Amino acid sequence: MHELPLSWAFTLIEPGPVVLVTTNDGVKNNVMTISWTMVLDFTPMFAITTGAWNHSFAALRKSRECVIAIPTVDLLDRVVEIGTCSGADTDKFARFKLSALPGRVVNAPLIGECLANIECKVVDIISKHNIVVLEAVAAHIDQTRKEKRTLHAVGDGTFIVDGRRLDRRTMMASKLPEGI
Amino acid sequence: MHELPLSWAFTLIEPGPVVLVTTNDGVKNNVMTISWTMVLDFTPMFAITTGAWNHSFAALRKSRECVIAIPTVDLLDRVVEIGTCSGADTDKFARFKLSALPGRVVNAPLIGECLANIECKVVDIISKHNIVVLEAVAAHIDQTRKEKRTLHAVGDGTFIVDGRRLDRRTMMASKLPEGI
Repeated sequence: MHELPLSWAFTLIEPGPVVLVTTNDGVKNNVMTISWTMVLDFTPMFAITTGAWNHSFAALRKSRECVIAIPTVDLLDRVVEIGTCSGADTDKFARFKLSALPGRVVNAPLIGECLANIECKVVDIISKHNIVVLEAVAAHIDQTRKEKRTLHAVGDGTFIVDGRRLDRRTMMASKLPEGI
Repeated sequence: MHELPLSWAFTLIEPGPVVLVTTNDGVKNNVMTISWTMVLDFTPMFAITTGAWNHSFAALRKSRECVIAIPTVDLLDRVVEIGTCSGADTDKFARFKLSALPGRVVNAPLIGECLANIECKVVDIISKHNIVVLEAVAAHIDQTRKEKRTLHAVGDGTFIVDGRRLDRRTMMASKLPEGI
């Protein structure tokens, strides 16, 4: 994993991929599959929807840290399986043969098999709407990886794979944040 | 546009497409391009990130209504242009030849050229984080449309088009909400 400038981290979340969110409760690692994410700011700040129905939520609330990992299409079956079992009774890193790599800032692990990892601190929890507000503090990308296509959950059990990329940089120039 | 059961509306937002958000301030229609959206609940509830930097925000706050319209790849140039000019000095529906169709519940218009439209009521504005919480009250889909591929903004001026759809309905069965 190479360090990715923080100013680019929002470009990993803005396209709306399915992500894996890792936590460490002080004793063990856990990971959950999440589709409900949003960019809040280029700085970067993110929102995710989660709550007590996810076993990871207790560790997220206690440690106030997590890592958002970006899986690609080759990991689809593991992404689905991670999302359909619970850390309450499963060591998901062992079961799904995920490499827990140390982060630079947080204690939650990076996932070595993923395209990218964003280390985050919890800055707010809006309990009324189950929104967790995150600030990214470091980001990493595997530039050696050939497969870069991410997945988009439809919500009905199907997933859309990234297709063609269309370039509108010139038209968008006035709207792009500095450094992008 | 055909009525889409509300229980399916979240499947339009969960994959993370670029959307158009329409408003009506009591006098005129407006529309903005947004990539920062998130599902909050299957009921369905959504969050979008917006604020005073968008001209539409005043109408959204005043009317407490909007429509989330889902454009497809054939509309890319209009989507970019809508996002790079302002309703403060432009009648975007006229300029971009968008058909403003009446909604069933809200006064903000549906966009006839889009794949789908979700009528929404504002249920909360979390000013601290520029999050607007929306509840969908009606949804519509153009089932006659051949082009169904949506767009995912990367944030650097490029856009990813929907590719293949992979089916994991059987593996996901335990996690799908009722009626899906």
